[in-house]
Amino acid sequence: MELHHPERSEIELPAVLHALSDPQRLEIVRTLAESAAPCPCGSIELGVAKSTMTHHYRVLRESGVIRQERKGTMKLTELRRQDLEARFPGLLDAVLTSRTVHV
Amino acid sequence: MELHHPERSEIELPAVLHALSDPQRLEIVRTLAESAAPCPCGSIELGVAKSTMTHHYRVLRESGVIRQERKGTMKLTELRRQDLEARFPGLLDAVLTSRTVHV
Repeated sequence: MELHHPERSEIELPAVLHALSDPQRLEIVRTLAESAAPCPCGSIELGVAKSTMTHHYRVLRESGVIRQERKGTMKLTELRRQDLEARFPGLLDAVLTSRTVHV
Repeated sequence: MELHHPERSEIELPAVLHALSDPQRLEIVRTLAESAAPCPCGSIELGVAKSTMTHHYRVLRESGVIRQERKGTMKLTELRRQDLEARFPGLLDAVLTSRTVHV
Protein backbone atom coordinates (compact mmCIF):
# COMPACT_ATOMS: atom_id res chain seq x y z
CA MET A 1 0.00 0.00 0.00
CA GLU A 2 1.34 3.37 -1.01
CA LEU A 3 1.84 5.87 1.82
CA HIS A 4 0.28 9.27 1.23
CA HIS A 5 2.53 12.31 1.22
CA PRO A 6 1.41 15.85 0.40
CA GLU A 7 3.16 17.56 -2.49
CA ARG A 8 5.50 20.37 -1.49
CA SER A 9 2.92 22.97 -2.57
CA GLU A 10 0.30 21.29 -0.40
CA ILE A 11 2.31 21.53 2.82
CA GLU A 12 0.51 24.01 5.08
CA LEU A 13 1.96 25.92 8.01
CA PRO A 14 -0.79 25.18 10.57
CA ALA A 15 -0.50 21.44 9.94
CA VAL A 16 3.29 21.53 10.24
CA LEU A 17 3.14 23.55 13.47
CA HIS A 18 0.54 21.15 14.84
CA ALA A 19 2.72 18.16 13.93
CA LEU A 20 5.66 19.78 15.74
CA SER A 21 3.65 20.81 18.80
CA ASP A 22 3.91 17.43 20.51
CA PRO A 23 7.05 16.75 22.62
CA GLN A 24 7.35 13.16 21.40
CA ARG A 25 6.99 14.16 17.75
CA LEU A 26 9.56 16.90 18.32
CA GLU A 27 11.92 14.24 19.67
CA ILE A 28 11.38 12.10 16.56
CA VAL A 29 12.10 15.12 14.34
CA ARG A 30 15.27 15.95 16.30
CA THR A 31 16.49 12.37 16.02
CA LEU A 32 15.83 12.34 12.27
CA ALA A 33 17.62 15.69 11.91
CA GLU A 34 20.74 14.19 13.46
CA SER A 35 20.66 11.14 11.21
CA ALA A 36 22.71 11.18 8.02
CA ALA A 37 20.52 8.58 6.33
CA PRO A 38 16.83 7.64 6.42
CA CYS A 39 16.03 5.82 9.69
CA PRO A 40 14.42 2.40 9.78
CA CYS A 41 11.06 2.66 11.50
CA GLY A 42 11.51 1.17 14.97
CA SER A 43 15.02 2.54 15.36
CA ILE A 44 13.68 5.54 17.26
CA GLU A 45 12.49 4.50 20.71
CA LEU A 46 10.62 6.83 23.00
CA GLY A 47 9.30 4.25 25.44
CA VAL A 48 5.74 4.61 24.21
CA ALA A 49 3.34 2.08 22.68
CA LYS A 50 3.91 1.08 19.05
CA SER A 51 0.43 2.35 18.20
CA THR A 52 1.38 5.75 19.62
CA MET A 53 4.51 5.83 17.48
CA THR A 54 2.45 4.85 14.42
CA HIS A 55 0.11 7.74 15.16
CA HIS A 56 3.01 10.19 15.54
CA TYR A 57 4.57 9.05 12.26
CA ARG A 58 1.24 9.45 10.48
CA VAL A 59 0.73 13.01 11.78
CA LEU A 60 4.29 13.91 10.75
CA ARG A 61 3.90 12.28 7.33
CA GLU A 62 0.49 13.69 6.47
CA SER A 63 1.56 17.21 7.43
CA GLY A 64 4.61 16.93 5.14
CA VAL A 65 7.29 16.94 7.85
CA ILE A 66 8.64 13.46 7.07
CA ARG A 67 8.77 11.09 4.14
CA GLN A 68 8.43 7.34 4.62
CA GLU A 69 9.28 4.71 2.06
CA ARG A 70 8.91 0.96 2.18
CA LYS A 71 12.06 -0.99 1.34
CA GLY A 72 11.18 -4.67 1.39
CA THR A 73 9.93 -5.32 4.89
CA MET A 74 11.37 -2.07 6.26
CA LYS A 75 9.93 1.40 6.38
CA LEU A 76 12.54 4.16 6.07
CA THR A 77 11.84 7.60 7.46
CA GLU A 78 13.51 10.91 6.71
CA LEU A 79 12.85 14.61 7.29
CA ARG A 80 11.59 16.59 4.27
CA ARG A 81 14.19 19.26 4.92
CA GLN A 82 14.28 20.76 1.45
CA ASP A 83 10.53 20.90 1.11
CA LEU A 84 10.11 22.50 4.54
CA GLU A 85 12.91 24.99 3.90
CA ALA A 86 11.37 25.96 0.56
CA ARG A 87 7.93 26.47 2.06
CA PHE A 88 8.89 27.95 5.46
CA PRO A 89 12.47 29.27 5.35
CA GLY A 90 14.21 29.05 8.70
CA LEU A 91 11.34 27.37 10.52
CA LEU A 92 12.83 23.91 10.96
CA ASP A 93 16.19 25.30 12.04
CA ALA A 94 14.49 27.58 14.58
CA VAL A 95 12.60 24.61 16.00
CA LEU A 96 15.67 22.36 16.09
CA THR A 97 17.86 25.03 17.66
CA SER A 98 15.45 25.90 20.42
CA ARG A 99 16.24 22.95 22.67
CA THR A 100 19.76 24.12 23.32
CA VAL A 101 18.80 27.69 24.21
CA HIS A 102 18.31 28.40 27.89
CA VAL A 103 17.36 31.90 28.96
CA MET B 1 -8.73 39.83 38.04
CA GLU B 2 -5.09 39.45 37.08
CA LEU B 3 -4.46 37.65 33.81
CA HIS B 4 -1.95 34.83 34.02
CA HIS B 5 1.17 34.98 31.87
CA PRO B 6 4.02 32.47 32.01
CA GLU B 7 7.45 33.86 32.86
CA ARG B 8 9.89 33.93 29.96
CA SER B 9 11.68 30.86 31.33
CA GLU B 10 8.39 28.99 31.53
CA ILE B 11 7.52 29.43 27.84
CA GLU B 12 7.71 26.01 26.22
CA LEU B 13 8.15 25.21 22.54
CA PRO B 14 5.36 22.62 22.18
CA ALA B 15 2.82 25.03 23.71
CA VAL B 16 3.95 27.87 21.45
CA LEU B 17 3.80 25.67 18.34
CA HIS B 18 0.36 24.45 19.38
CA ALA B 19 -0.83 28.03 19.89
CA LEU B 20 0.43 28.94 16.41
CA SER B 21 -1.00 25.84 14.72
CA ASP B 22 -4.49 27.30 14.28
CA PRO B 23 -5.12 29.46 11.18
CA GLN B 24 -7.23 31.98 13.11
CA ARG B 25 -4.65 32.32 15.88
CA LEU B 26 -1.94 32.72 13.22
CA GLU B 27 -4.00 35.55 11.75
CA ILE B 28 -4.23 37.24 15.17
CA VAL B 29 -0.45 36.92 15.59
CA ARG B 30 0.19 38.37 12.12
CA THR B 31 -2.11 41.30 12.83
CA LEU B 32 -0.37 41.97 16.16
CA ALA B 33 3.02 41.73 14.45
CA GLU B 34 2.04 44.48 12.04
CA SER B 35 0.79 46.75 14.82
CA ALA B 36 3.14 49.35 16.27
CA ALA B 37 1.27 49.52 19.58
CA PRO B 38 -0.70 47.07 21.73
CA CYS B 39 -4.10 46.39 20.15
CA PRO B 40 -7.36 46.87 21.99
CA CYS B 41 -9.13 43.55 22.29
CA GLY B 42 -11.97 43.59 19.79
CA SER B 43 -10.00 45.52 17.21
CA ILE B 44 -9.04 42.30 15.45
CA GLU B 45 -12.03 40.82 13.68
CA LEU B 46 -12.02 37.39 12.12
CA GLY B 47 -15.74 36.94 11.70
CA VAL B 48 -15.97 34.32 14.44
CA ALA B 49 -17.90 34.27 17.70
CA LYS B 50 -16.62 36.39 20.58
CA SER B 51 -16.26 33.23 22.68
CA THR B 52 -14.02 31.74 19.98
CA MET B 53 -11.84 34.85 20.01
CA THR B 54 -11.66 34.70 23.82
CA HIS B 55 -10.51 31.10 23.57
CA HIS B 56 -7.87 31.97 20.96
CA TYR B 57 -6.54 34.83 23.09
CA ARG B 58 -6.36 32.56 26.14
CA VAL B 59 -4.40 29.88 24.25
CA LEU B 60 -2.01 32.52 22.92
CA ARG B 61 -1.63 34.16 26.34
CA GLU B 62 -1.15 30.98 28.37
CA SER B 63 1.47 29.67 25.93
CA GLY B 64 3.42 32.92 26.22
CA VAL B 65 2.85 34.20 22.67
CA ILE B 66 0.96 37.34 23.69
CA ARG B 67 0.65 39.62 26.69
CA GLN B 68 -2.67 41.16 27.66
CA GLU B 69 -3.15 44.01 30.08
CA ARG B 70 -6.27 45.67 31.34
CA LYS B 71 -6.34 49.44 31.00
CA GLY B 72 -9.53 50.68 32.58
CA THR B 73 -12.28 48.96 30.65
CA MET B 74 -9.99 47.95 27.78
CA LYS B 75 -7.79 44.94 27.33
CA LEU B 76 -4.63 45.66 25.35
CA THR B 77 -2.86 42.85 23.53
CA GLU B 78 0.68 42.65 22.22
CA LEU B 79 3.08 40.01 20.93
CA ARG B 80 5.82 38.90 23.37
CA ARG B 81 8.42 39.33 20.64
CA GLN B 82 11.47 39.71 22.88
CA ASP B 83 10.55 36.78 25.08
CA LEU B 84 9.88 34.53 22.08
CA GLU B 85 13.08 35.63 20.34
CA ALA B 86 15.11 34.95 23.49
CA ARG B 87 13.61 31.50 23.94
CA PHE B 88 13.30 30.41 20.29
CA PRO B 89 15.55 32.56 18.09
CA GLY B 90 14.16 32.99 14.59
CA LEU B 91 10.97 31.06 15.20
CA LEU B 92 8.48 33.92 15.13
CA ASP B 93 10.11 35.49 12.07
CA ALA B 94 10.02 32.16 10.25
CA VAL B 95 6.33 31.78 11.05
CA LEU B 96 5.49 35.36 10.07
CA THR B 97 7.49 35.19 6.83
CA SER B 98 5.96 31.98 5.64
CA ARG B 99 2.72 33.43 4.38
CA THR B 100 4.42 35.38 1.67
CA VAL B 101 6.42 32.44 0.34
CA HIS B 102 4.87 30.54 -2.55
CA VAL B 103 6.75 27.61 -4.03
